[in-house]
This record gives sequence, C-alpha cells and structure tokens, in this order.
Amino acid sequence: MRIVLDAMGGDNAPYVTVEGAIETVKDISDIQVILVGRQEVLHPLLERSTYPKERILVVNATDEIKMDDDVSYAIRKKKDSSIRRGIELLKNGDAQAFVSAGHSGVVMATALLLLGKVRGVKRPAIAATMPTLKGKVVLIDAGANVDTTAEHLLQFALMGNSFSKGILGISSPRVALLSIGEEDTKGNEVTKEAFKLLKNTDLNFIGNIEGKDIFRGGVDVVVCDGFIGNIVLKVSEGLAEVILKMLKREIAEIVTGRLAYLLMKPAIKNFKKKTDYSEYGGAPLLGINGTCLISHGRSTAKAIKNALKLAYRFAQQNFNATVTDYLSRYTPERVSTPVGTAF
Amino acid sequence: MRIVLDAMGGDNAPYVTVEGAIETVKDISDIQVILVGRQEVLHPLLERSTYPKERILVVNATDEIKMDDDVSYAIRKKKDSSIRRGIELLKNGDAQAFVSAGHSGVVMATALLLLGKVRGVKRPAIAATMPTLKGKVVLIDAGANVDTTAEHLLQFALMGNSFSKGILGISSPRVALLSIGEEDTKGNEVTKEAFKLLKNTDLNFIGNIEGKDIFRGGVDVVVCDGFIGNIVLKVSEGLAEVILKMLKREIAEIVTGRLAYLLMKPAIKNFKKKTDYSEYGGAPLLGINGTCLISHGRSTAKAIKNALKLAYRFAQQNFNATVTDYLSRYTPERVSTPVGTAF
Repeated sequence: MRIVLDAMGGDNAPYVTVEGAIETVKDISDIQVILVGRQEVLHPLLERSTYPKERILVVNATDEIKMDDDVSYAIRKKKDSSIRRGIELLKNGDAQAFVSAGHSGVVMATALLLLGKVRGVKRPAIAATMPTLKGKVVLIDAGANVDTTAEHLLQFALMGNSFSKGILGISSPRVALLSIGEEDTKGNEVTKEAFKLLKNTDLNFIGNIEGKDIFRGGVDVVVCDGFIGNIVLKVSEGLAEVILKMLKREIAEIVTGRLAYLLMKPAIKNFKKKTDYSEYGGAPLLGINGTCLISHGRSTAKAIKNALKLAYRFAQQNFNATVTDYLSRYTPERVSTPVGTAF
Repeated sequence: MRIVLDAMGGDNAPYVTVEGAIETVKDISDIQVILVGRQEVLHPLLERSTYPKERILVVNATDEIKMDDDVSYAIRKKKDSSIRRGIELLKNGDAQAFVSAGHSGVVMATALLLLGKVRGVKRPAIAATMPTLKGKVVLIDAGANVDTTAEHLLQFALMGNSFSKGILGISSPRVALLSIGEEDTKGNEVTKEAFKLLKNTDLNFIGNIEGKDIFRGGVDVVVCDGFIGNIVLKVSEGLAEVILKMLKREIAEIVTGRLAYLLMKPAIKNFKKKTDYSEYGGAPLLGINGTCLISHGRSTAKAIKNALKLAYRFAQQNFNATVTDYLSRYTPERVSTPVGTAF
C-alpha cells in the first residue's frame, strides 16, 4: 500500500516528516511512503539514513505554502505545492491515502477540489480524537465547516459513528450532540432540529451532552458545528497547558515544592504521554472521496508515524465505500426508515 | 443598601445561603440582606446564630423550583417561588440587587418578565468571570442567549467592557471576539459581521482570539454567542476536574507517588483556591433593568457571600444607568460615530 506524506507540512518539517516516514516503513512491511516536497532538501536527509530504500519514494514539489497563507490564494497561485502534488497522486490512483501536518485549510480545500465528496455527503468534516478520563472521544466536526445545518450534523454523526466503529474499534459507539442542556428542548435552532433527526436513526444516540461531559469518558462521538468544535478543541488544548503551568507555579512556591516536583516528575511525564495528541496521529477528513488525514502543525516524528499508520488502517478497510453505503440509508426521504445494519 | 437573596436556590440551600448572608452582614456594615424562602425553615436556622438581627430579614415564599423544572412551567405555575418573590422586591424598590444560586433559566426569564431590559439593550447576557494564567477574564455571553446576531455580540462587548472596567477595575479592558482564527476573515457569518461592528467602536478591541488563548491571560473580555459561551464554560470546568483526576491517578501509580502527593498537597490546595469559582461569587445578568446575579448551583457559603458583595458593588455604582448611557452611543444608526468617553 502506498501513502503520500506532505513532507513540507508542519512546524518541524521536513526533519520530522522524513523521520516519521522512515520509522513507519521499518514498522509496517507492506507500506510504501511517497514523500512530496523539495527533492533537493529531501534527498540528502534520506541519504544519511538506513531504511529499506525501495519503500520511500520522493516526488518533487517546489511551491511552499505558509501557515498564514490565504486558502484561495494558495490554491490559485501555488499549483506546485506539496499539498496539491500529493493529493493529485491520490486522485490518479498512485496512492491510497494522504497525510499532511501543513495548512489544514489548504488541505481541505484542495482535497475537496481534486477528490470531491463521497456520494451523498453534503459537507466533509474533521474527526478529532481526544483523550478522556476513560478512553478516547471523537469530536466531529473539529473545524471543517461553519454555519452548519441540522442535516449536516446528522451526517457528521453517521460519519463519526463509522470512524469510531470501523477504525477505533468501538462496538456500539455512544453518539451525543453537544448542547447546553441534556433535555431535547435545550440548544439552539440547529441542534434542536438535529436532535429530532438523530433520534430517528439506528445510531446509539444518547442525546444531548454538555461541555463538562466531553472529557469524563461516557461518550464515544461528540457531534457539533465546526466553529464550535474548533473552539472546544483549542480551549481544551490551551486549558490543559495553562493548568499544568499553574500547578507547577504553585508547586514551586511551597517549601516542599522542589522535592515534590522531583518525586512526581515521572507521573507528569506519564500524564503528558497519555494526553499527547501525537498518540492519535491525525484527524481524518471524513466525507472526502479519498483518505486524507490532517496532523497537528507541531507534529513530532512519532505523530507523523501514528498518522501514517492510521491512514493505513483507513485505506485497508476501504472506509469511504462503507460510509457511502451507510449514509445512503439516511438521505432526507428515508431518514425514518433505516434498513440493514450499521457499519 | 438592601440585597435580596434567594434563600432556597442551589444544591446546598438553605444552609449555605443563610450562612453566606450572616457572614456578609458581619463583613459589611451598610448592607441588609432579605432572605426569601420558606420562613418555617429559615427562622430556626437564623435563630441559632449570632449576628446583627436587624440586618437580615425574611420574606416568605412557599413554591419550590427544582433544577430540572421547565422554565415556562415554573413561571406560570410557581408564582410564590423564592425567585419570583425576590425579583418582585427588586421591582418594587424594596431592594437594590438580587442574587440566586437557583435555576438560572428561571431567574433570567423572571427578571426579563418583571424588570425588563435596560433601555437600548436587545438581549441581556450572562457575564462569567474565570481565572487565567494572569488575572481574570470575563466571558460574555455565558449562556443567556442562543442564535445571536452580530448586533447582539456588539452589545455583549459593550456591556462586558463596562463590567470589566467599572466593577473589576480594569482601566482599558482588552476586548476580543471568540473565533477560529485571528484574521478578520476567519469565523462564521455572525462573527465576521460582528468583527466589523466592533472595529468601529471606541473599545480596546484586539480582534479575534482562538479558544487556546482564553486562559493565557492576554485578554480581559471574550465575546461570544451564549450557546458557545456556555459550552466553553462547561468544557473548562469539566476539563479542569478531569486533568486533576488524571494527574492524581498518575501520581498514585508511581513508586514515589504517595510521598510526592503528600509534599505537593498544599500546592494543589492553593491551585484549587485560585481557580475556585466561589472566589468570583456570581455572574451578573447584564442588560436587565435591575441588578441580578446568578451563582453556581454548587455554591458554598463563601460563594454566596462573594456574590452578595459583588451585587453590592453593582448597586453602589448604579451600573445599569452607566450601561444605558454607554450603549445609547452605539445604536445602529450611530455605530460609526461614538461620542464622549467610555464608561
């Protein structure tokens, strides 16, 4: 199987992308990685490493996309970028999946432009996986769409369910709608309407949940608009950092602080490891007609490796075909008469 | 000055409400607290305590509002509730402020029904104060409104600014719009429109901020729709709890854990104290024609006391009159020509 990696995407590219690719081909025997980017930079990095040479290919791409580039400008003017060249390889059937830690807006827009949507999908969505007190939770949409409708939310729920079930291995994912109260009458216009649609599916829909319940581990898929999902994701990331900093500050200020910190250091390390985004690799762009994963801009080599492995699982399972089939049972006309079994 | 306290509101009422009232009148000499609730419960609690008797009054109210009561049902059917009787006292001029740790939806709806809005205000909003790495931040709206417009967000910003300046003492509050990217082109339809309106005010508007920046301490007032604000508030509350639990679990699992925990315990206590909601007392309902504060359902006596003190500051400053004046300068016709100085 061939997976394309945007070798130039992310804060630490191309060092961590090259290293991540090398580690991946060492780990999984039937994977080939195509590194897309400036070959004069990539070749020297590869040459000084030891790995099965035939399993990492380089495809040249010269345009550089910066993290603050305007999406439409980047798409119009930077046709030889690693993102575009990479997704073209997917489109032409030269690879089965694409991974990028680069500009997520450009990845989404390029994927939509070149690959299009899975049949029946109104809007693709980002499914972000986050750690909780017990296991993981999938947040969908984590930022692909703003101003979504109830029908979009229904589709996010269906796609998120398939992801949780098929890729993360949860047998009957508990799907919940993010709102401001548990009762079906609580929420805004869109979520109240979405609640009704979700009730009439064969999903294991557990109703509305509030923000405080996301991380407690009682739900597997949290459905929301991408504007809200992105804010939740970033609030969580920012708050986790701030809490650790505040705690460290308090520890530094007590007499027994230095010793306490020394003794608890391994625990902080374990905590950081368990809550580290890099363990989750990347967030799939669900509903795109091709497997595309977005990794964190700060990705390490390990995060890249985990993203490539996740992409491998997606491609292996022919995930998109399954989603197409599943979604087709919930077109607006048929929403109240689901047939067959879920993914 | 007289402040009404909903003696029956909150998980630990009436014990903590009575205690909070007693501590308040002991602390501030020119305050009278009117406890509204079932007098046969309140009188015995008061009788066994020592305090300046003439400074706590009891007004009887017999209906009980439960936390899961439907708002419109509670308003129609429970006319002798402590919330309604309390707000009536405010309306009739028998008191200058109202505090409740009870059903926030019923408090809002009753306040709106009996007191109405400050002149010029389209929608009242909840201003929640939260701890950050450096100082405090005000989140407005924290849950009074869903499906808000750009003009509503503008008014939330103006009211939040007045609160930060007048009550919290920040000389030039940095006001930001919560969005999914810093550029003015990022956001949903409503926030993009609100960005334009906010740019044309005399506010110290620092632009969009992302979720990760709320708790870093670089902003004083964060403006958002109430659906989103409520989710942010609850995510933060839930995540802080979960992070502490996960850390404790990790500490318990290492060899040096028991000793480390023992040594760091005072630091955890200090951290909890600094991030404790009860330090902030309550969240004012801005834009209501009367001072109403909503306290956390889990309020302790200390939280009640702090809420009463905050209510005292509001009433002392004649906050609503100032807000009326300030908002009148930004009615839609005049939004681009502010005159005079801000509150």
